Amino acid sequence: MVTKTVHEHREQMRGGKGSAEMYHIIEKDANSDTVRLFSKIVLNPSSSIGRHQHTGETEPFYILSGRGLFTVNDEPGVEVGPGDCCWIAPGDEHTIENLSDSEELSMMALIYKK
Amino acid sequence: MVTKTVHEHREQMRGGKGSAEMYHIIEKDANSDTVRLFSKIVLNPSSSIGRHQHTGETEPFYILSGRGLFTVNDEPGVEVGPGDCCWIAPGDEHTIENLSDSEELSMMALIYKK
Repeated sequence: MVTKTVHEHREQMRGGKGSAEMYHIIEKDANSDTVRLFSKIVLNPSSSIGRHQHTGETEPFYILSGRGLFTVNDEPGVEVGPGDCCWIAPGDEHTIENLSDSEELSMMALIYKK
Repeated sequence: MVTKTVHEHREQMRGGKGSAEMYHIIEKDANSDTVRLFSKIVLNPSSSIGRHQHTGETEPFYILSGRGLFTVNDEPGVEVGPGDCCWIAPGDEHTIENLSDSEELSMMALIYKK
C-alpha cells in the first residue's frame, strides 16, 4: 500500500517560536502500543519547538537539512545539521530551534514506547 | 545526546541487484522489543532490495528522493517518489527497485513490532 503523509500546520509548537509543518507517516495515536509518531517535521525559519517531555517514550530524530540548536534538560545546547541523530530519553525535557532566518530545518522524528 | 549514523554497505541486498548503503540511527538489535530498525537507506542506481518478508513486524518507509518501483506480494508494482509512504504489513513479501541508472533512491525505513 502506498499512502501520502497527513499535513498538520502548527503555530508556536509546544510554546516555541514561529511555526512548523508536520507530515505524518503514521497518523496520530495509531499504533500507540509501540510507535506513536513517525513524521517529517519542518521547522520554518527562526522557529522552534518549545521545551517539553514525553513520559515513557523514546524519541530519536534525524536531521535531513538545515542547522538547529538541540537542547536536553539543562545541558548546553548542541548545534546539529544534516546526518545528526538527536536522542531524547524517556522524561527528558527537550527543545530544538532553527538557527537560520532564511532556511528550513527539516528532520524525521520517531516516538516509540520504551 | 547527539550521535552519528552507523554506515553499512550491502551488496545484492536480500538477493536484489547492485548495492545499497544503510545509515542506521538505531543500531541493529537495540530496542528489539519495539523498534528493530530506524535507518536511512540509499539504493544505488539500478539497484534493488530483493523479495523478502518480516514476521510479526510492520515496515513503513518514506521516500526522500529518486524514483522506485515498490511491489508487495503478487500485486502490480507501484511507482513511487519523494513524499510517498510505502507500507508493508506483517508477513507481506516485498521488493523495491531503483528505476534510475544515474540517480540514488533514498528513503527512511522503520521496522517495528506489530
